Amino acid sequence: MISKAKSKFIKSLKIKKYRKQEQCFVVEGRKSVTELLTSDYDVVMVLGTPAFLAELQPKSTTEVLEASESELVSLGTFESNDGALAVARMKPERLLLPAEGEWMVALDDIRDPGNLGTIIRIADWYGIKKIVASPHTADRYNPKAISASMGSFLRVDLCYAELSGYFGQLQVPVVGAFLDGESVHAAPFGNGGILVIGNESHGISEEVAACVALRVTIPGYGGAESLNAAAATAVILDNLRRLQKKD
Amino acid sequence: MISKAKSKFIKSLKIKKYRKQEQCFVVEGRKSVTELLTSDYDVVMVLGTPAFLAELQPKSTTEVLEASESELVSLGTFESNDGALAVARMKPERLLLPAEGEWMVALDDIRDPGNLGTIIRIADWYGIKKIVASPHTADRYNPKAISASMGSFLRVDLCYAELSGYFGQLQVPVVGAFLDGESVHAAPFGNGGILVIGNESHGISEEVAACVALRVTIPGYGGAESLNAAAATAVILDNLRRLQKKD
Repeated sequence: MISKAKSKFIKSLKIKKYRKQEQCFVVEGRKSVTELLTSDYDVVMVLGTPAFLAELQPKSTTEVLEASESELVSLGTFESNDGALAVARMKPERLLLPAEGEWMVALDDIRDPGNLGTIIRIADWYGIKKIVASPHTADRYNPKAISASMGSFLRVDLCYAELSGYFGQLQVPVVGAFLDGESVHAAPFGNGGILVIGNESHGISEEVAACVALRVTIPGYGGAESLNAAAATAVILDNLRRLQKKD
Repeated sequence: MISKAKSKFIKSLKIKKYRKQEQCFVVEGRKSVTELLTSDYDVVMVLGTPAFLAELQPKSTTEVLEASESELVSLGTFESNDGALAVARMKPERLLLPAEGEWMVALDDIRDPGNLGTIIRIADWYGIKKIVASPHTADRYNPKAISASMGSFLRVDLCYAELSGYFGQLQVPVVGAFLDGESVHAAPFGNGGILVIGNESHGISEEVAACVALRVTIPGYGGAESLNAAAATAVILDNLRRLQKKD
């Protein structure tokens, strides 16, 4: 049995305000919790079914508690839980900057935490290690973002910054996805820079668009007005990486 | 005010069993409802705010009812509704087959209706007009699928069929996304065929894999184990269409 106080603490972390106050967040599911334990995150607490805990190698500072699957479901946000839930400490936020020749992704108000997590997973697939997100982008520690990232939040770092000010400090090319840019099949992506992905409904804001040096477009062949933000990210990164391979 | 009977009828359409029984489904939001009214779907009922109805040109057989935004929210599945909801009649299902030189998409147990809708939108972007889905794929008329498709359900047709039997009847190449195939950057996609996308967790089933003539892979550059199904669909279709353009 999990104590009432612990249960209240864990459940409170569904809310951004309490995550911020406690500087902690929740990770759900066997696979993600197992990966979390091999990462450099400070894991405060692991709750698991006896079957999960039997195979567990917790960090020495981690409190380990036995819980049933139904307890795990009641504590977390998943409709079902395959045996594990952990509480980890947020890392101190630091401004991320692109190294020479490195590609980063910038998110201009991606509001949906599921979309944010999916984009983090896609960034990880394409070897992007740093994301800068506008202040109105969803919270990286939202349980839906953590879950949709499928463990990629452990490998892709993210910071929040006002994008136009952030770009102003940098000397690297900023590439943006618009409906009226150069085809991604022929765009001169170059070696390193920042790819900006716009809001799900409104695209890239005017202020941020003014910082974009290269406007690219994904060629369409049918009737849809646009691609969703995550799919657009994947297609552009695929085109960008494909060019670098040829160099 | 919407009558109790109508309210009950509309709410019942959230459940697949009642959609099937009534052969009706719900479309939410101004943009989708407006597009629905210009499509060849039979629209049974439109509910809208006075502002929406003032601009409306309903079909003659459509019942039009005034409703407040909060009534629309209570009837539908959206957290907020910008003024419109409609009930439309399902089309009779018919088996879809690829024409000469046409590309279709096949879905092998895409379980999440949101993913299904997103894939329908991506297919529409890439000019795919027909999808064949395994019987365990999510229901195309699920409100989340309709909503995520952003109107593309009107342009992309979909049928359900046991995939291995379906492929067995056809003479066209079947292409599948695996983790061990040829790079999509160099794969010989050819002119027309069927692209199979596998289940979100388990990929393409063994039975369906046995029908695949060309196994393709999306090159990865980072730590993620896989891409999500919708992003993979977009990247493969982008590579496939890009080749056709060069022909």
